[in-house]
Amino acid sequence: MNEDLRICFIGDSFVQGIGDPEYRGWVGRVLTATGPGITAFNLGIRRNTSADVLRRCWPEVEPRLRPDTDNRLVISFGSNDAVVENGDVRVGRARCLDNLATLLTESRERAIHPLVIGPPPVVDAGAEHLRRTAELADDMADLCDAREVPFVATTRQLADDPVWTREAAAGDGAHPGSGGYQRLAELILESRWHAWIARPTL
Amino acid sequence: MNEDLRICFIGDSFVQGIGDPEYRGWVGRVLTATGPGITAFNLGIRRNTSADVLRRCWPEVEPRLRPDTDNRLVISFGSNDAVVENGDVRVGRARCLDNLATLLTESRERAIHPLVIGPPPVVDAGAEHLRRTAELADDMADLCDAREVPFVATTRQLADDPVWTREAAAGDGAHPGSGGYQRLAELILESRWHAWIARPTL
Repeated sequence: MNEDLRICFIGDSFVQGIGDPEYRGWVGRVLTATGPGITAFNLGIRRNTSADVLRRCWPEVEPRLRPDTDNRLVISFGSNDAVVENGDVRVGRARCLDNLATLLTESRERAIHPLVIGPPPVVDAGAEHLRRTAELADDMADLCDAREVPFVATTRQLADDPVWTREAAAGDGAHPGSGGYQRLAELILESRWHAWIARPTL
Repeated sequence: MNEDLRICFIGDSFVQGIGDPEYRGWVGRVLTATGPGITAFNLGIRRNTSADVLRRCWPEVEPRLRPDTDNRLVISFGSNDAVVENGDVRVGRARCLDNLATLLTESRERAIHPLVIGPPPVVDAGAEHLRRTAELADDMADLCDAREVPFVATTRQLADDPVWTREAAAGDGAHPGSGGYQRLAELILESRWHAWIARPTL
């Protein structure tokens, strides 16, 4: 690992860790499992869609990184994009994918190494929301594959996970507690996380 | 506690929790001890002075708060202001106090309830830095008193704390590990924190 590794995590309430009484979320758990000495920034904001993230990404990320450093960006959104409000999804699938493509292009232009975490399910949002989110996640995975950016699938895995679904149902219907975030952290740690930390693809 | 309590923590590396292998820092520990359900945002950036915080405060804080909510802002800086670079302190005492006054005024204008955490000591920065930081902290306390904003003194307490100083010396010379952050969290929790959470002064 580089001596000065900086990682910004940008996204929605799941990135933020809403619902975790330990206030660590998956981000804190993944960092602890990765090791000490990382300069990490959690830029999750609840209710954020891909459009919200695209709008604030560089104004918030650039002051947190340094030009002489190994700079990383972990991106995660989509669950809010797929929510229906006023008769339509908040952000359509094509637009969400375009927002992700723009972020990946702009990361590369800045020599910031990206990794994408797929959208977790929103348990009480129903079967149609889950279907839309899972299809969006599949398209995000294809986009990332085409650009050789690592992608971690989470949607169906967590929708089928008893800890995640039980905690979300016992909470606000969307966010798990410590156990669900631990499960999500394990999905990430069991994926290409450690390889990406050791040697990013750009 | 309000049903929708939102707290932004803005400041420097000590706010960020740099050095804590658990990636919780004092912010995570104070939140866990306060209770579940808080929507919290950690906006600490290492090397930030009061001038850096003033510059980015509202562009970063405003998108994280909601008008119909109990909005709070925890401010902590000063240790970097008092560091000498190129023969002078990075930000002089009068300027630092003026930056704090501006932030408190602008918080009040936005109906955001502030609380100020005094600057922790930088163990390996020497006796003169500690003297400057402690004097700055005293002035910050007076300014907060005059505005009826709660202030938590930390500088001398942590400079005299064996856990803080031992962990900082064993680390990068400035940042403690989990034990030092736990000690700082206790200073905050034993102060007016719980009263401020229950009923803010504005």
